Amino acid sequence: MSANVFERVQASFAQQQFMTTLGAMLVSVTPGTVEIAVPFRADLSQQNGFLHAGVITSILDSACGYAALSVASEKFNVLSVEFKVNLLSPAVGERFVARSQVKRAGKVLTVVAADAFAIRGTEEKLIATMLATIITTNATAPDS
Amino acid sequence: MSANVFERVQASFAQQQFMTTLGAMLVSVTPGTVEIAVPFRADLSQQNGFLHAGVITSILDSACGYAALSVASEKFNVLSVEFKVNLLSPAVGERFVARSQVKRAGKVLTVVAADAFAIRGTEEKLIATMLATIITTNATAPDS
Amino acid sequence: MSANVFERVQASFAQQQFMTTLGAMLVSVTPGTVEIAVPFRADLSQQNGFLHAGVITSILDSACGYAALSVASEKFNVLSVEFKVNLLSPAVGERFVARSQVKRAGKVLTVVAADAFAIRGTEEKLIATMLATIITTNATAPDS
Amino acid sequence: MSANVFERVQASFAQQQFMTTLGAMLVSVTPGTVEIAVPFRADLSQQNGFLHAGVITSILDSACGYAALSVASEKFNVLSVEFKVNLLSPAVGERFVARSQVKRAGKVLTVVAADAFAIRGTEEKLIATMLATIITTNATAPDS
Repeated sequence: MSANVFERVQASFAQQQFMTTLGAMLVSVTPGTVEIAVPFRADLSQQNGFLHAGVITSILDSACGYAALSVASEKFNVLSVEFKVNLLSPAVGERFVARSQVKRAGKVLTVVAADAFAIRGTEEKLIATMLATIITTNATAPDS
Repeated sequence: MSANVFERVQASFAQQQFMTTLGAMLVSVTPGTVEIAVPFRADLSQQNGFLHAGVITSILDSACGYAALSVASEKFNVLSVEFKVNLLSPAVGERFVARSQVKRAGKVLTVVAADAFAIRGTEEKLIATMLATIITTNATAPDS
Repeated sequence: MSANVFERVQASFAQQQFMTTLGAMLVSVTPGTVEIAVPFRADLSQQNGFLHAGVITSILDSACGYAALSVASEKFNVLSVEFKVNLLSPAVGERFVARSQVKRAGKVLTVVAADAFAIRGTEEKLIATMLATIITTNATAPDS
Repeated sequence: MSANVFERVQASFAQQQFMTTLGAMLVSVTPGTVEIAVPFRADLSQQNGFLHAGVITSILDSACGYAALSVASEKFNVLSVEFKVNLLSPAVGERFVARSQVKRAGKVLTVVAADAFAIRGTEEKLIATMLATIITTNATAPDS
């Protein structure tokens, strides 16, 4: 079950060229949860040398979308309708992970929450949190 | 006046290595408004070949932060507290622009709205909209 | 056209008992825009004597939902999927108005922006802004 | 400790006349968490007879603000900067509760998550979720 879910998500993740550009990796998938990681790179930073909020948001967004996909029927696609992010602490670390969890899966809309953590050595620090709405569709464009 | 504002924002923008990685360009700055553009590149795409929502969000976020900076006192820094994005249409185009406008500038917090457009030939289409809260601080880390 | 739209919205508004409880009034409706007003009452206040954010949010939410209804096909119902509110200034005034405008109307989802103003004498002050996602449905429950 | 926190929050809650108007009750307070309940009343409903989203949002907002107050220093006041709500299911029930939990408490800004549940008999159903930013201040107006 869970293996199939991982393969399905992995197949789509591999097609997200932007995830490759960021150096992001799909770490784990279970029905309703996804973890994505990205190591720090200077070319992903903002003006103070921290990871840019856009990078954290990108892995949070992908983690939310794939959590929705992990509970959707096989023939369906998912697209982000909207999300909100709170940036809680500067993104300082060697590596960053986004962990998502479905809050409610509906026929049309799925709501997903996700947290992002900065990792330094063995220490993890919560740095951001997202609340997202995902549409499950058999089309490739949102709301078409 | 406006020239100084452009220079101040440009100086910070040039230090955002992630903007360079995305190929993003600072197009214009006036007190309270900023425009940032990014041309399409396949390595910035999601699984359907559209620009990844994370890229659109990144230029919207930078456009909001710099709009807040453009109305802040010179010695201050800005950091994103939170933002919400609605993705309205698939990001299909040759080039994408984010245009921000300050809604309310406060001593501590500034609220900024921004729209993103996809450009194909001479046609512009609204594809996303952001509402963001920015903190103005003389520190380099949020809420420290 | 516009008259029909007003009547359709008015018919639903009159059934929202909570709007009556708040003393809220439907001021105007055009295709894509709605204005709702509420006079100040002490029993709607928070601990500092300002209008409670929940009241401002309630009229903003209704204004967004009805703006979506004003551009929907006649047999359809609308329900709020989610919204975000920024509270910009304390809600101090004799009367408060929420003005909404559709940003994008889709077959399933409509995105609406709205601003709330406090009115004192002839002066209007922007006090809050909302960005909302509304679902257009022929059912009475969201995403059922 | 917790008793003092309850009293401090209760004192402010009692001054929120709008909570009385809604029939809302402060159920519990611990450092970082708050629960507020409101029984169903027809005069709080929307056009389909469900509790209006504005009522659910109002108790979620108060629960988030008071969770921030519960971890703030005694002389401080709290004000909502912004919040986002996802409405997950129709608000059908005999009674509704909002439960908040601080995600990060900062010197200036505190981020709080909250869920709302509809209660019918012994059954609880998740109907809404909020993510909120609260400012801790010694003033009575936001960002003054």
